[in-house]
Amino acid sequence: MKLLRRGAIGNELPLIEVEGVLYDASPVGDFGPNFWKNNGVAKLRELLDAGRLTAIELGSELRFGSPVAAVGSVICIGQNYAAHAAESGAEPPNQPIVFFKTPNTIAGPDDTVTIARGSEKTDWEVELAIVIGSTASYCDSVEEAAGHIGGYLLANDLSERRFQLEASGGQWSKGKCCPGYMPLGPWIVTADEFDPGNVGLRSWVNGEPRQDSRTSDMIFDCARIVWDLSQYMQLEPGDIISTGTPEGVAVSGRFDYLKPGDVVEVEIDGLGRQRQQYRAWEG
Amino acid sequence: MKLLRRGAIGNELPLIEVEGVLYDASPVGDFGPNFWKNNGVAKLRELLDAGRLTAIELGSELRFGSPVAAVGSVICIGQNYAAHAAESGAEPPNQPIVFFKTPNTIAGPDDTVTIARGSEKTDWEVELAIVIGSTASYCDSVEEAAGHIGGYLLANDLSERRFQLEASGGQWSKGKCCPGYMPLGPWIVTADEFDPGNVGLRSWVNGEPRQDSRTSDMIFDCARIVWDLSQYMQLEPGDIISTGTPEGVAVSGRFDYLKPGDVVEVEIDGLGRQRQQYRAWEG
Repeated sequence: MKLLRRGAIGNELPLIEVEGVLYDASPVGDFGPNFWKNNGVAKLRELLDAGRLTAIELGSELRFGSPVAAVGSVICIGQNYAAHAAESGAEPPNQPIVFFKTPNTIAGPDDTVTIARGSEKTDWEVELAIVIGSTASYCDSVEEAAGHIGGYLLANDLSERRFQLEASGGQWSKGKCCPGYMPLGPWIVTADEFDPGNVGLRSWVNGEPRQDSRTSDMIFDCARIVWDLSQYMQLEPGDIISTGTPEGVAVSGRFDYLKPGDVVEVEIDGLGRQRQQYRAWEG
Repeated sequence: MKLLRRGAIGNELPLIEVEGVLYDASPVGDFGPNFWKNNGVAKLRELLDAGRLTAIELGSELRFGSPVAAVGSVICIGQNYAAHAAESGAEPPNQPIVFFKTPNTIAGPDDTVTIARGSEKTDWEVELAIVIGSTASYCDSVEEAAGHIGGYLLANDLSERRFQLEASGGQWSKGKCCPGYMPLGPWIVTADEFDPGNVGLRSWVNGEPRQDSRTSDMIFDCARIVWDLSQYMQLEPGDIISTGTPEGVAVSGRFDYLKPGDVVEVEIDGLGRQRQQYRAWEG
């Protein structure tokens, strides 16, 4: 099942898409923490099977919002592809590296991105993201951890490299939290219908290819990440975990950083595609 | 005005204390983001002046909860006292160092703390925390930044030093997010009634003194921190910023880390005192 949210910012309608048909999911509620806590996916299936969801047609121009709402924590994994670690000047990690973005970085997949004030090093990062479906704490096994994954979605973990690497004594989050620097979506695919082990993920800037890798190149796979994090923190329903980016970003020195007027596209097989135009901050 | 919340976990009643009298603040709502967005402090003052708040007496044994609810982001500043930076083996920073805790680390000031599974290096950190009163983005001056501070409160930024320093490639947050590792309170003092510039902050373990410094030793003061952060992220009403700890923690090598049965107390002049008993994780 695909979960998505469409409409103006702050006024998105929760929807599911099944066999190409959109249904209004609002009888079960928006896709925030309570949706997952209350087994929202199972409830939607029940209503769908009973013919009690309303099919709906939406104009193709209607905005896609982030497919997650009211997110508690946006947890990110760094340097989780060996070739990207190398292009960033680092050794591949022996444990998942964690940093955070604030929830107010989340934006719709195609929303225009305002380049942060003072930014000269805004960089793209296509990533496979997880939405947590149930509370995960001290998972006993990777298999148990896998069971806490509610679904998968596409993320662009936008970064400001000067803020990340030069403005916070080596702690990265200062360069990860600019408003709008976490486009998510267009949709979630529920965990029962998506195998994250070996899918392609790609990015382009102004139509030119940048990243082109497969999730099979991840050092720590999705379930291993959830298992690892659960040893250090309690993951909550609706939390987002973005699992790291492959090689092909600007910090490598091979490409220019983003500037006003640029267009970035990112995609993951089965999880859709994003397209953002970039503009200057104007006060 | 003092803002506080008392009652069982998840069932706290918002209260204000004025001249030693407690009043039920629930007509204005709980002390979450919407309280600050809707000018909750001004509304409480109006109701109080009009004699429309109900005085209430509570047994002294009734639990204190965290005085903040539904927090979006818990932002922390590292190594903000020169002597603590030195005891941690670091140079004093030239810009505020930022890391995050997850919101589910927040606990009441006197709640028993469960030492995280596998922890051998749980450490205390008395800190002055800020609650953000209004949205702060690209503040033009430190004076503007000061105006976005809603109030001040006491925090114990508990850390697991192995998780922090050895398990995440140098990124600290993995050692900051164990459940219950951010006792807050007992109360908020609103910004109009508290001068954060030169107050004493202290900690004890089993009655023995550990930290004893003054906020005048901070490298970056509260308003400067808000100004700095606002250049990199948008601070939201109800967000917490914990402003760093002075010297006298276990990572210095001068003291033992915490073990089951220990009692930690922390206090800041005017912001009250916390007392936590520590217990082993038992599954």
